[in-house]
Formats: sequence, C-alpha cells, structure tokens
Amino acid sequence: MPLTQTAPAPADIERAIRNIPDFPKAGIQFKDITPVLADARLFSGCIDLLTEHFKPGMVDAVVGIDARGFIFAAAAAIKLQAGFVPVRKKGKLPYQTHEEEYELEYGTDRVEIHEDAVRKGENVIVVDDLIATGGTAFAALKLLERAGGRVVGCCFVIDLPDLGGADKIRALGKEVTTLVTFGGH
Amino acid sequence: MPLTQTAPAPADIERAIRNIPDFPKAGIQFKDITPVLADARLFSGCIDLLTEHFKPGMVDAVVGIDARGFIFAAAAAIKLQAGFVPVRKKGKLPYQTHEEEYELEYGTDRVEIHEDAVRKGENVIVVDDLIATGGTAFAALKLLERAGGRVVGCCFVIDLPDLGGADKIRALGKEVTTLVTFGGH
Repeated sequence: MPLTQTAPAPADIERAIRNIPDFPKAGIQFKDITPVLADARLFSGCIDLLTEHFKPGMVDAVVGIDARGFIFAAAAAIKLQAGFVPVRKKGKLPYQTHEEEYELEYGTDRVEIHEDAVRKGENVIVVDDLIATGGTAFAALKLLERAGGRVVGCCFVIDLPDLGGADKIRALGKEVTTLVTFGGH
Repeated sequence: MPLTQTAPAPADIERAIRNIPDFPKAGIQFKDITPVLADARLFSGCIDLLTEHFKPGMVDAVVGIDARGFIFAAAAAIKLQAGFVPVRKKGKLPYQTHEEEYELEYGTDRVEIHEDAVRKGENVIVVDDLIATGGTAFAALKLLERAGGRVVGCCFVIDLPDLGGADKIRALGKEVTTLVTFGGH
C-alpha cells in the first residue's frame, strides 16, 4: 500500500458497505461491513475517521462490543496506543463480571464486563460497528460506569438515526461520532 | 505511553495471562487474555511479536476467527497495513459463504467465510488467540483454500502443545508462530 494513497472519506466507506436484504430475517436490510474490512486502505482510514477526535495518550482503553465491535475497537486501540476491553454476551467472560440487561425486539439479553476491566477514572471510548436503538451501547455505558471508567466518547461506523440510539447517547452528554448514516433525516 | 518503554517479551505476556480454573466447566484451566489486552504496551507488543515474520506489504489480509481471534487479527491487520477477513460461526455472515465442519469434544460445529472474502492468490495469515486441537484453525485453512487465498502463516498467542494442533498445521507445511505455551513438552 503506497503511502501516497489519499485517505478515504466517509463517502468511500459508505460505497463499500453492502446491503443484504432480508438478513438475518425478512424485512431487515443488513449492512455488511466486510468489504470495508477487507480493503486495507478503507479499514485503516475508517479507524482514523472514527477516532479523529482523540490523540494517542488521551484514551486509556477502547471498549469493543461482542463481536463485530471487537474488530473496530481493537484496531482503534492499536492506533490510539490504548488498551482494549471487551464487553461480551453473558457467559463468555471467565472472571468476575458486572452484568447489564438490554432490550431486544422480543425479550431481553445480557452483556458483561470484567469487574477489573478498567481502573477507576480511566478514560475510555466505546466502539461498535453500528448504532440502532442503542440498547447494547447503553448497557456498555452502564457497565463502564459500574467498573469505574470515564466514557469520553462513543464511536460507530454506521448510524441508523430513525432508531434514535445516537441521539439518546448524546442526550446523556456523551460525544458520539458516526461515519455513515442509512435511512432517516 | 512514552516511546522509551521497552517492548514486552513473551514472558511478560505469559505473566499477564490469568488462569481461571473450571471455566467454562469443571476440569478446564481457562487462559484469560483480557489482562494482556487491557495493557496498551502488552497488547501492542503482543501483536508485534505475533507478526514479526511479516512486514507491511507482505500480507494482503489477516484472517480472524470468531470472536477472540477478531481482536488480535484486527490489530495485526492495522500493524501490517492489511485488510481483515472474518471467519465466523455458522449463520453470522450475511452474504454467500463457504462452510466447513469441525469437531468439538462432543459433536461438531461449523464455520463460514464469505465467498468473496479474498481474491485468488492473495497472501493471508490466520490469527487466533489460542491453538489447542486446531479444529477451527484447520477449518479456516480449508475455507481459505476454497476461497482462493494463499496462507503464508498462522499466528496464535497461546499454544497448548499437548493437544497437537500447532504440529498438525506445521505438518501441512504452514509457518506457525506461537508466543506462550502452557502444559506439555
């Protein structure tokens, strides 16, 4: 990859996202980010855009949400010279955890964080591939509060603004960065 | 993180790995890598050691295995200026896939890769947190063969040599890098 390549813009990332109708079920337009990941320039550029409000040293840890969030969050942690902290679905983390419930379309699910995942007062950012209703992101924020972390930003590649999650997180006073928007507004 | 910090050695990574007895079930000594991830210096150094045989430009894509493998593989992709390709548990990838079965202690499971995940002849490396019997790694190698990728290396943070997976992959003529060994030899 020659260093003279220009950095991608959000529009380049948007063009690479593939729409998959009716996945995982009828009526859902699934946003497939794997073509962004497979392209070294787009993947790296996407992480740069996602974290452009932060400089190395400003963030102690990047929190990634199981499982696609791990990809973007781990990449961001390397770029920001930060640690990486997983928020996982219930039952996956082996040590003592805090646990939060969040709502699904039908029913609820649970996510966990290790009790010792962050040190008190550490600056963290939450990274995920997509924000819709914000259920898992909200649960992650609550988990980080309980673990003692200070959330200084939330970064999502894709925003579905019709579902209101990003606005709800902004209403908490949190900085939210999104790169690509589908539907709405 | 001051630049004068020395790079970690495999022994530093080994010391940070936490043993969790009887997880996820009685008799299993689970190797918890989250303390490595949470430490910016260890996480970054771990990726450098894992990929030290490769230079940016030598690898087109880093293949990560669902879900902990995503963390190390995405970080390696950024360091090597490569793309990232996920191998996922069945039903998670939205586009057309190749599928491979692998054996569990009791029964079998399936992993998938998108049919267009790599271009024919691309150089790829497979990255995961741990190799035990090598079941998922083998399935990933078969998937990459079907997708047309050329696997130039397999990198695992932890090797459990008693279970033979790393040796079986070496017997295929593949370069295998592991950083930390538990049990055996």
